[in-house]
Amino acid sequence: MLAQTPGKSDILNVSEIIRPYIHKTPILTSETFDQLFETELFFKCENFQKAGAFKTRGAINAVFSLSTVDAEKGVATHSSGNHAQALARAASIRNIPAFIVMPSNSPQVKIDAVRQYGGKITFCKPNLKSREETLQNVIKETKAIEIHPYDNYTVIAGQATATKELLDEVPELDLILCPVGGGGLLSGTALSAAYFSENTEVIACEPTGADDAMRSFKAGEIIPSVDPLTIADGLLTSLGERNFPIIQQYVKDIVTVSETAIVDAMRLIFERMKIVVEPSAAVPLAAILEQKIAVKNKRVGIILSGGNVELKNLPF
Amino acid sequence: MLAQTPGKSDILNVSEIIRPYIHKTPILTSETFDQLFETELFFKCENFQKAGAFKTRGAINAVFSLSTVDAEKGVATHSSGNHAQALARAASIRNIPAFIVMPSNSPQVKIDAVRQYGGKITFCKPNLKSREETLQNVIKETKAIEIHPYDNYTVIAGQATATKELLDEVPELDLILCPVGGGGLLSGTALSAAYFSENTEVIACEPTGADDAMRSFKAGEIIPSVDPLTIADGLLTSLGERNFPIIQQYVKDIVTVSETAIVDAMRLIFERMKIVVEPSAAVPLAAILEQKIAVKNKRVGIILSGGNVELKNLPF
Repeated sequence: MLAQTPGKSDILNVSEIIRPYIHKTPILTSETFDQLFETELFFKCENFQKAGAFKTRGAINAVFSLSTVDAEKGVATHSSGNHAQALARAASIRNIPAFIVMPSNSPQVKIDAVRQYGGKITFCKPNLKSREETLQNVIKETKAIEIHPYDNYTVIAGQATATKELLDEVPELDLILCPVGGGGLLSGTALSAAYFSENTEVIACEPTGADDAMRSFKAGEIIPSVDPLTIADGLLTSLGERNFPIIQQYVKDIVTVSETAIVDAMRLIFERMKIVVEPSAAVPLAAILEQKIAVKNKRVGIILSGGNVELKNLPF
Repeated sequence: MLAQTPGKSDILNVSEIIRPYIHKTPILTSETFDQLFETELFFKCENFQKAGAFKTRGAINAVFSLSTVDAEKGVATHSSGNHAQALARAASIRNIPAFIVMPSNSPQVKIDAVRQYGGKITFCKPNLKSREETLQNVIKETKAIEIHPYDNYTVIAGQATATKELLDEVPELDLILCPVGGGGLLSGTALSAAYFSENTEVIACEPTGADDAMRSFKAGEIIPSVDPLTIADGLLTSLGERNFPIIQQYVKDIVTVSETAIVDAMRLIFERMKIVVEPSAAVPLAAILEQKIAVKNKRVGIILSGGNVELKNLPF
């Protein structure tokens, strides 16, 4: 497991390590969007990733970085969704147990997916205190190794590979936009952009109803997320201690978007691109819709973070 | 315009003619489906095609095959949906008018799309008689050239290019499955398979509630579709006179599927592949779900015909 901010060679190594177990996701474009916004958008489709989200990258890297002795104990985490299924899948591939603490109000589709991958679920109350306490109890009982969803350098290095792939296929991007929750994807994205495409700026996009990352970024210290309220259920968490300094150093800006814009962007992606994304993945396009980011005449990468959405409950 | 069944060289020519105006759609695979059915499925994603369906191929070919004199008169058709938008788009690219007769109960999303491409809509009653009468009136008034949605060799040659692309990228398929309505896609698919991959069998898939193609195929003569009832709104029409002989000669079999299986297949494609398809496009996977086609240990191409679906009204 990495003990410090991943370097350029770490990310190159990780790309090789995880390659057999992840999907090299396609990059899609949309003539409609490009005409509408007078820009060139390149969507890195992590909604097509194994287990439906970029989280697979970090989870695979974490699980396959464990020593044999540690791996035998299994892995454990608390997660409201995508990290849970990604870790359960990664553990099942290495044939070790995964102990997953999930809030009792997690979407059924995500609970089902964790079970399908053989994850052992312990439910907790839907708040951070209960999640952490329940996880500590599970770890005490099982001796499993905790794999934090984002506040973990090995996980960050895994998430960084999405942007590495994007830049390999679409060089000379002016901007990369990505959503921010705990900061795992964002810190990895920012590192890859800094290492592999120094002229590419990274801008993070966050729901106004969960704007702790923006406020932390402006304040220069982590401000916890308190009672966040947004449809983007992947972006409710507070920034991680390991993620924040990377974000401070390498991210250009963090912008916030309304719930209406998130739903509009999500619908546009379904209607125009014919792909399924979860609300969190629509947040960067929402920022373009609300003109929070100047994209005119620029080449812009967008990380579509995931596609795990309850189809019975679409917001449009 | 072609006056007879397209030959191998016709389809090769058409591929070149339409290339600048269509999208070379990606081919997606699904580990989940492959494991579930012990097969290899290759999905040709015409839901990602311009205007959201394979119909763009035939429409572009038809519009760009017109002489300058004919083109100036504009084009006309009746269509419940995808051909309408495809023809409106093709006409707008050549900068000529498109007169579209649409049943009054067409999905709003398809009406909006035709308007967006500048198509001039005349509404008619939702039956074949009214569609044809209204179209003849429109043509009498405008002198526009009729472009039939499927009973047209130039259109058939256009639709054939989807399978040509599929076979170029994924050779040695054992089977290709495609939905059948009027038979435009099916006849084109069958021709391309026969010309470019002689060991590839084509099997058509049809809703039980609109099984006129299966019955025609068994009877050896066209049996019109009377009061069809299916969620697969692209497959309501009767087989065309030009399509039927091609289907008789080159299609191996036609199987039928239940409405439940169509909805299940559609939901599986959304959930597992994270892509948006319309019900008609889910019909081949429905046939696999209902074990109407033996796919075990085979390499199977599936034409996902389109992705124009009213998202407010998903059947799951």
